[in-house]
Amino acid sequence: MKTARGTRDVYGEDAIVRQQIVKTLREVFELYGYNPLETPSLEMYETLASKYAGGEEILKEVFKLRDQGNRELALRYDLTVPLARFVAANPNLKMPYKRYAIGSVFRDGPLKLGRYREFTQCDADVVGSASMASDAEMISIALDAFERLGPDVKVKVNNRKILDAILENAGVEKGKAEAAILSIDKLEKFGKEAVEKELAAKGINAAAIKKLMQSISVKGSNKEKIEKLKKIADSSSVEEIESVLKFAASKKVEFDIALARGLAYYTGTVFEVFLKNSEIKSSVAAGGRYDKMIGQFAQNKREYPTVGISFGLDVIADAMKSAKKEAGSSVTKAYIIAIGQEKKAAEIVAKLRSQNINTDADYSGKVGKAIEYADSSGIPFAVFVGKKEVAAGKIKVRDMKSGKEKMVKISAVKDYFKNG
Amino acid sequence: MKTARGTRDVYGEDAIVRQQIVKTLREVFELYGYNPLETPSLEMYETLASKYAGGEEILKEVFKLRDQGNRELALRYDLTVPLARFVAANPNLKMPYKRYAIGSVFRDGPLKLGRYREFTQCDADVVGSASMASDAEMISIALDAFERLGPDVKVKVNNRKILDAILENAGVEKGKAEAAILSIDKLEKFGKEAVEKELAAKGINAAAIKKLMQSISVKGSNKEKIEKLKKIADSSSVEEIESVLKFAASKKVEFDIALARGLAYYTGTVFEVFLKNSEIKSSVAAGGRYDKMIGQFAQNKREYPTVGISFGLDVIADAMKSAKKEAGSSVTKAYIIAIGQEKKAAEIVAKLRSQNINTDADYSGKVGKAIEYADSSGIPFAVFVGKKEVAAGKIKVRDMKSGKEKMVKISAVKDYFKNG
Repeated sequence: MKTARGTRDVYGEDAIVRQQIVKTLREVFELYGYNPLETPSLEMYETLASKYAGGEEILKEVFKLRDQGNRELALRYDLTVPLARFVAANPNLKMPYKRYAIGSVFRDGPLKLGRYREFTQCDADVVGSASMASDAEMISIALDAFERLGPDVKVKVNNRKILDAILENAGVEKGKAEAAILSIDKLEKFGKEAVEKELAAKGINAAAIKKLMQSISVKGSNKEKIEKLKKIADSSSVEEIESVLKFAASKKVEFDIALARGLAYYTGTVFEVFLKNSEIKSSVAAGGRYDKMIGQFAQNKREYPTVGISFGLDVIADAMKSAKKEAGSSVTKAYIIAIGQEKKAAEIVAKLRSQNINTDADYSGKVGKAIEYADSSGIPFAVFVGKKEVAAGKIKVRDMKSGKEKMVKISAVKDYFKNG
Repeated sequence: MKTARGTRDVYGEDAIVRQQIVKTLREVFELYGYNPLETPSLEMYETLASKYAGGEEILKEVFKLRDQGNRELALRYDLTVPLARFVAANPNLKMPYKRYAIGSVFRDGPLKLGRYREFTQCDADVVGSASMASDAEMISIALDAFERLGPDVKVKVNNRKILDAILENAGVEKGKAEAAILSIDKLEKFGKEAVEKELAAKGINAAAIKKLMQSISVKGSNKEKIEKLKKIADSSSVEEIESVLKFAASKKVEFDIALARGLAYYTGTVFEVFLKNSEIKSSVAAGGRYDKMIGQFAQNKREYPTVGISFGLDVIADAMKSAKKEAGSSVTKAYIIAIGQEKKAAEIVAKLRSQNINTDADYSGKVGKAIEYADSSGIPFAVFVGKKEVAAGKIKVRDMKSGKEKMVKISAVKDYFKNG
């Protein structure tokens, strides 16, 4: 009896740390005024297959199924298309609509290391706001979230309009711009030479490639890059990135003219969040502005300027190895071992739980086995409730890591665990 | 663009209250020493179709699909079979294994009021414990959870072995016991007469029905019922229920000899949690002991005595109407409206967020529209940051419900929202 291919069970410290990450992201999203939205995992196939959605590439990876009424259904492959469907179906929604969603998404794609067919996305989006303050808010959310989570990050930010202007300025034909962007997107991963080769293979001439590579390789501070760009790109796109960088002022934010992001539906700001000092090179969160997509879903063809961010729970969890070590493999803090004194032990258990201290207990009387259980389960403290101890109004607490034991007054036991 | 049949979007106060319920259940589960386990929504079809799993009835409602490798998959219809698969696949798991799981399950069944094809279960189970203290722990978890959630509840508890003994004692043939239990299960819903009719239709003779109905209609306190039963059922089954009632001593727990619970896999304790003073008559949580099922999944055919509880998130959310009213439709507590003073406003926003106060802001300068937004979004406080106010080191806070306004010192604003 195995898990389905490309899926897995998550338990022990992995599950505990995932919960912590989800809790933190939820808190940060709400701190910024985003409200929860739960859409189903199951959608009508036609919704996901809409030409305004993720495109051909992603449709190949959709899990399709039928209900008993023979309706064509599918498992969602992201949380963005369901958001678009929801907004389109609720025309009276107050704008800007700020929502977050945390849930499983499904892609029946080829399996690579660290990629799963069922994985969790954590998204926040502002629908109905064209203000660059919203784009900057996404970056602030990312910085705030990772500040709380621990790992040090840098944010790379760009604007699709700048890329478009650079491509035009370099002399790349309009029909080849999309293909060129997909190649540029690989610069960080595969290097300059490989990208130049790919661009040439796509039929872009040598002069255009040279000019293009020069433009996207502009060096300097964010400010210096912007000054240089003003000579190439039109002022409105440069103003947008200037505005985002002003609102999201942080040393951790870098304007990267080569950043493209794969998805075709982005229309303005794009950004990716990377770990500093980590062997994990893929982004841990990313997003951008997509002003056209949601409006295409709506019957009234109204425009819904939208910007969003998506956190990859699995990759963030992978990055948080030290947190896992700290979390241990059990949520339980105290393991109460009754040595004959079941009633007193049960009282202490109830007392600790009433103080919100995670507590488990053993009443079997098999003390050695109970200690072994606490140890192998990763529970940090064992508490012995025996006749001698109870007579003295005390219990014996053993720190399972150090093996050190301490007598603690029963009346003070709740404070003992609260403080340490 | 509609949601798939039998599914729905959850947003506004509904989504906020669901989050609160999930958070509370998670806290209570962890308080009792249960660790998180995440199993996939997708399982191999053969796992769910195993003869030890939910049975024919439930298999009819399974959503089936295939991956690109043409493997037969299915969406899980509960969280119990995946637990059994997980335990069987991990023979080195330390027993007792206490886990909780919160997630979507899927049933392609007929649609009735309040029933969905995708819904959320919140389960806690102890695997590998035969102790009645574990059965009682399930009841304590239910009482503790509803104490925190608000709604007043009663718990009905019984033991399958007692039902078996009563059936035998009444002279119901062994081959008809299972069918008789399914009829008895309908007593609360359809009344005595209907059940008697159904039993007769199942070929049980009048004398047996009479004796059976007498036994399950025994009245009195829990203690009185137990005394009466000792004359009918064998002592071990009565001892089990006595033990559970001793560990889970509460006025809210009622021994109900007619309680059966539909599922065939229960082997001992069964219980259901009902709301007091509510129009909702179906149970809000339920569970029981199923000692045989998990062992059947394991290759080593080892026994895994197990007891569990499942909370129905949807029905609990329905019951928490007053909580919804209190929660309102937004998580945001303060809506900062900049009247020209963008920089000062942004500072106040950052300050409030750093104090973990959910804050949103408007920098558009369109004050009337911003007030209307705060009002219709259900945000309780609007905060005006204008020139005159800032010059005086103050801001103006409006209580959106009462309309009352108050000048608050900027230096004290975080305490203002913390305290009320």
